[in-house]
Amino acid sequence: MNLKAYLSEKRELVEAAMAQLMLPAQGELSPHIEAMRYSLFAGGKRIRPILCLATCEALGEDPSPFMPVICSLECIHTYSLIHDDLPAMDNDDLRRGKPTNHVVFGEAEAILAGDGLLTFAFDLLSSADLQPALTAEKQLQIIAILSRASGSLGMVGGQAIDIASEGKEIPFETLRYLHSCKTGALITAAVQMGAVLGNASSSQYRALTTYGQNIGLAFQIVDDLLNVEGTTEQLGKKAGSDAELDKATYPSFFGLEATHKKAKEAVAQAVDALIPFNTSADPLRELANYIYYRKR
Amino acid sequence: MNLKAYLSEKRELVEAAMAQLMLPAQGELSPHIEAMRYSLFAGGKRIRPILCLATCEALGEDPSPFMPVICSLECIHTYSLIHDDLPAMDNDDLRRGKPTNHVVFGEAEAILAGDGLLTFAFDLLSSADLQPALTAEKQLQIIAILSRASGSLGMVGGQAIDIASEGKEIPFETLRYLHSCKTGALITAAVQMGAVLGNASSSQYRALTTYGQNIGLAFQIVDDLLNVEGTTEQLGKKAGSDAELDKATYPSFFGLEATHKKAKEAVAQAVDALIPFNTSADPLRELANYIYYRKR
Repeated sequence: MNLKAYLSEKRELVEAAMAQLMLPAQGELSPHIEAMRYSLFAGGKRIRPILCLATCEALGEDPSPFMPVICSLECIHTYSLIHDDLPAMDNDDLRRGKPTNHVVFGEAEAILAGDGLLTFAFDLLSSADLQPALTAEKQLQIIAILSRASGSLGMVGGQAIDIASEGKEIPFETLRYLHSCKTGALITAAVQMGAVLGNASSSQYRALTTYGQNIGLAFQIVDDLLNVEGTTEQLGKKAGSDAELDKATYPSFFGLEATHKKAKEAVAQAVDALIPFNTSADPLRELANYIYYRKR
Repeated sequence: MNLKAYLSEKRELVEAAMAQLMLPAQGELSPHIEAMRYSLFAGGKRIRPILCLATCEALGEDPSPFMPVICSLECIHTYSLIHDDLPAMDNDDLRRGKPTNHVVFGEAEAILAGDGLLTFAFDLLSSADLQPALTAEKQLQIIAILSRASGSLGMVGGQAIDIASEGKEIPFETLRYLHSCKTGALITAAVQMGAVLGNASSSQYRALTTYGQNIGLAFQIVDDLLNVEGTTEQLGKKAGSDAELDKATYPSFFGLEATHKKAKEAVAQAVDALIPFNTSADPLRELANYIYYRKR
């Protein structure tokens, strides 16, 4: 299969659905809605919604009636980027080559744009329009998965630990937990939500969860690698100087070579988890490899 | 009935349930969970959960199996206070006589504590533990009510309009819309959620919605009044100097006397909406009056 064409096609599908589902910027709410739309449509690979969609397809189900569920993942991801970029958090001025939300709209509006997107995710997920394509039980199950994965026991908690760990030496166990919360939980949730949409059996759900956890892990390890290797280029320092950085990363614990190996192992385990699935799961298999090879 | 005793009893009930439902502060997440707990247990009248509970009781249903639903309202309310108090928003250092969340835990953690509480509300609402006391359909309906009322078309949107209106002259229509979003929507949702819990018929649901909208309106008008009358005392200015304030309020449009009249009218309309209900709705009737007479 041609993954590049697949990703491009699905990205357009997700973006078209988001454009249709997102609130229109009109009346007194215009500045607020514009702020939300600015970040939601600022580009991005749409990996989480595509994972959800591809998982549903891997199970032989047509994901097209479920676009609100699929798009809710991008609302959560986008809100997390807006809040993470705030001056009080990571204080980033640029995201995907564009000024960050608070730079354009101000801090107050950026906080509210994030709050609005986070809440809108649950508005999308609880919509009566999803019935009868989904049963109420499945809608609830999906809301439970997403709220748990994106909250204090998942993404928000991971960011909190990350911020609390800055400049501190942390044991590897903490780094692993932080990673699994901050990045892994939402990626795993995307796959699990697709599994619910696709009527996965219990054993399929477990296999897909293993897949999601491993690509989540690979995703974060590769982020660490890109960060260090980028730094190497920029600073002209030798690769391997990551131990000097304040932030604990996989390379700072294991060095670059062993970290590459760990990323590849996680990808291999993700692909192994898909053994029971037929060729409908090929996009998931390709996506796992893509996570290792992206930006290379 | 003795409203004071009623409020105190129900407040204790709500706080005991929140203490049980809220995540324990342990392990690496301790600072984050502590920040959430700090604001959640910083006092407050618990008006929104009590309204939800009292509405359920007004319909003859026992609210005790529904405490996660009832407590989710306080999670949303508390998160909104934490974010509203941030330096980039209203920049308040004190709330209920205690230092605000960001003063104690720092801005980054306050943003995350708010995000965590907001997300936790939907975690509570989607819990499988609520079944079979609630059907999945009702759980979904409640999630739809709360996400709509607390998001961009409700509370978050109202705060966004409020911040965008600071120092500007706005027409009364905008003020009314802002109020109905910022304060009214969540109060109305509390009543509507109680109506769903109590198996309200369509006509009961409509009557209770009218009740909720009117006490929401009364609540905000009284907030405006307390604000102006408090200012009068502090500054030693004559009552009626509200027009000098930057912020549009009911008194700035109508003067104090007419504003008091409007608050009392809203309370009367709320009570009128309860005519079809028997004495089980007395706490709701008393609560409507309490909203006008609180802090007097």
